[in-house]
Amino acid sequence: MGHDCSFLSALDVSSSFDSDARDRHSSDFGTEAIGERSAPDAVVRPKTTAEVATVLAAATDHGVPVTPYAAGTSLEGNPVPTEGGISMNMMAMDDVLAIRPDDLQIDVEPGVIGSRINEVAADHGCYFPPMPAANDIATIGGMIANDASGMTTVQYGEVHDWILELEVVLADGTVLTAGSKASKTSSGYNLKSLFVGSEGTLGVITRATLELTTAPTEKRGGRAVFPTLEGASSAVTAAVQAGIDVATLELIDSVSAEIANAHVGAGLADNPAVFFECHGVAGEHALSQLKAIFEENEASSISLASDDERMDELWAARRELAVAMQLYDSTRRPLHPGDVTVPISHYPDIIADAKSLGEKYDLLVPCFGHAGDGNVHYTVFVDPDDERMVERGEALYRELVERAIEYGGTATGEHGIGIGKRQFLVTEHESDGVETMQRLKRALDPTNTLNPGKIFPEE
Amino acid sequence: MGHDCSFLSALDVSSSFDSDARDRHSSDFGTEAIGERSAPDAVVRPKTTAEVATVLAAATDHGVPVTPYAAGTSLEGNPVPTEGGISMNMMAMDDVLAIRPDDLQIDVEPGVIGSRINEVAADHGCYFPPMPAANDIATIGGMIANDASGMTTVQYGEVHDWILELEVVLADGTVLTAGSKASKTSSGYNLKSLFVGSEGTLGVITRATLELTTAPTEKRGGRAVFPTLEGASSAVTAAVQAGIDVATLELIDSVSAEIANAHVGAGLADNPAVFFECHGVAGEHALSQLKAIFEENEASSISLASDDERMDELWAARRELAVAMQLYDSTRRPLHPGDVTVPISHYPDIIADAKSLGEKYDLLVPCFGHAGDGNVHYTVFVDPDDERMVERGEALYRELVERAIEYGGTATGEHGIGIGKRQFLVTEHESDGVETMQRLKRALDPTNTLNPGKIFPEE
Repeated sequence: MGHDCSFLSALDVSSSFDSDARDRHSSDFGTEAIGERSAPDAVVRPKTTAEVATVLAAATDHGVPVTPYAAGTSLEGNPVPTEGGISMNMMAMDDVLAIRPDDLQIDVEPGVIGSRINEVAADHGCYFPPMPAANDIATIGGMIANDASGMTTVQYGEVHDWILELEVVLADGTVLTAGSKASKTSSGYNLKSLFVGSEGTLGVITRATLELTTAPTEKRGGRAVFPTLEGASSAVTAAVQAGIDVATLELIDSVSAEIANAHVGAGLADNPAVFFECHGVAGEHALSQLKAIFEENEASSISLASDDERMDELWAARRELAVAMQLYDSTRRPLHPGDVTVPISHYPDIIADAKSLGEKYDLLVPCFGHAGDGNVHYTVFVDPDDERMVERGEALYRELVERAIEYGGTATGEHGIGIGKRQFLVTEHESDGVETMQRLKRALDPTNTLNPGKIFPEE
Repeated sequence: MGHDCSFLSALDVSSSFDSDARDRHSSDFGTEAIGERSAPDAVVRPKTTAEVATVLAAATDHGVPVTPYAAGTSLEGNPVPTEGGISMNMMAMDDVLAIRPDDLQIDVEPGVIGSRINEVAADHGCYFPPMPAANDIATIGGMIANDASGMTTVQYGEVHDWILELEVVLADGTVLTAGSKASKTSSGYNLKSLFVGSEGTLGVITRATLELTTAPTEKRGGRAVFPTLEGASSAVTAAVQAGIDVATLELIDSVSAEIANAHVGAGLADNPAVFFECHGVAGEHALSQLKAIFEENEASSISLASDDERMDELWAARRELAVAMQLYDSTRRPLHPGDVTVPISHYPDIIADAKSLGEKYDLLVPCFGHAGDGNVHYTVFVDPDDERMVERGEALYRELVERAIEYGGTATGEHGIGIGKRQFLVTEHESDGVETMQRLKRALDPTNTLNPGKIFPEE
């Protein structure tokens, strides 16, 4: 802490040392919720790849950490500058550089907001499918850095599946292009995938070529309500196992339903529900398959929609859930909001575990998530001023994540490791896996300039 | 060359020094075609991960290179031990370890032949889609090492898209597990994708967990014949740009058609043709869309099939093409058989280039490929004893690959770099990209034990 960043003044790059700017770069959605902050010593706002390279090379020379920052919508403290130094705000690099509908490709800078990509693509009948739910505030650079995914991942895959090429600046200022504009390549090492999900610890992404697809001609979907959580989670598992072509398959438990229903005022029963959407001409067939599976698993109601208005109505509880959670109880805060993801046969198990752990620790733990991927977003609510409650929350959190790993799953399906999940890295990857990752970190960033204190466990 | 491998005798691992065994590990399909061979000093056949680790650790200690070898079906000399040492034959590790249909997953050892995976999966209504055409002789280990792909990649993606977890042994004998059995993860660096396509230069793959999908309930397809190559390649591009759900989209040019037709005795016109297949209940709709596009591009005939027998009949020329090429002319050999892949808008350009380069250098260059991916498999036929013809072939080859890179494409879409494509690595990735790859190589294999002389350009 307290790194001397005065060398920045000699560089021709916009930089700021004022406390407001530093404060605005001291947290993300996840750490802010629980009141953890760590301010950088300076904030820079590069406008070009060359400026990024200049700052990185100088910072490496001066032994000053650099942590990339964008919209700050991450959940695991990924861009929080825990060791101070420079916060590199990428939001001034926000141009859509080119769209090539004939190749189904778009070139973007890292600070472009996700929804803007789809606005530009829509003018050409295209879209970028693997967006997270927060795509109207999150940047593409952040999505790539955390290997994000979202509601349609069950059909279309994760962000990394849709990246063709990346321009990346290494800690020493080296600028390289990873990947290819061809739809497939086996040329050399897969550098592109190494930078995706590396959370700004291996390089700073300055340009991305994304693959697009044609927008679906037809969309259908709906909502199924279940009397029991077991019925809802078993229905999800059965649908995935049957290989039904479903574009989204979301679950909310009864606590989430209660919170969301109160917020949207829908007057619905506070029961577990599954939300679903199917795309294309085969959608009608897929819906009928889903309906049969939901009935087998004793859904109490199944509502279908084939137009946007009706779909919006049915999806209201799911759509408003994130906001409803934030406003739920002013004395409680979500401790480590995030996700785990498990092999689909264990989806009912992890959902049941979350519920029983909530009972064991006497805490409210609403769960929801991209169920078709085996994904669970838990929200452990605690009063941050109640030390014992926070301790119980931490214990619950650890047990839940460890359970997911025991099922062959992962500590984090789509939000990265950041600060919050470092404690599980060795459990998940064993020391040989973690050490191999550290060998790569040392190879590309021997001075540990880029985003120190993240991903790897404390030593 | 001439490495002392006598230390192997002290290890409890099957090894052989006899010249027959060494000779059988001195080439692959690509190098054999043109008569290039390089024998190892010894051949080992590990049966377990522990044996792989023992050999690697000992070889690293003794400064002896180790090159993994499996079916030898690669095209770029990828497993040819150009610096001698040990050829590590993985074919004794050929167990299907487990299948978990409830998770749509299968665990396999690297020596398992591709088609066997689909036999086992079929018993559970599942399959592994991204197989290369040679899946009845190629191993899954080789497919992973070269990041292979094939006819259905246009719909289902490449091998790397279907790998969840890998067990890998590093040069120093470290055994690690990369990836997760969850369908998605953002936990730590993406080690898995780094090992995929690294051609045995970073580690030896000893186990893989593959994702499966449910077998398509319906298959339809057919063949369209075109009077001109331009019409055929433009039709392919238009189909991809329209986002039609096509599971395979293959093109053969008129020279390939001539060779294949003569071999299968079909009595067809020797014209360019496009072969296609559509899966699922939306297949009928997709076929009608394809038909319209083929008609717009002036196809002279379009034949459709909705049963396997008729499909086999229509696909005969495409299916038998590889064998027909081998038998075509006993005085000619394919020089550097392989592929390039370009962004789809440039597919007609690269196909036209191959034809005009054939004319320029007065050589026969039949082309075919997974057209929907922008992929071209060229076959530059030369008489290996005709030095000038070989020189012309090399010049043509270089020009064609460089043209693909100029179009934003890749020197190799699915066969890796091996020996044959090393000369293009810097052109494609620039020196900063190549140097970054070399940093990773040094980090994981500082003694350059694993498969030396591959991927990176000669120094």
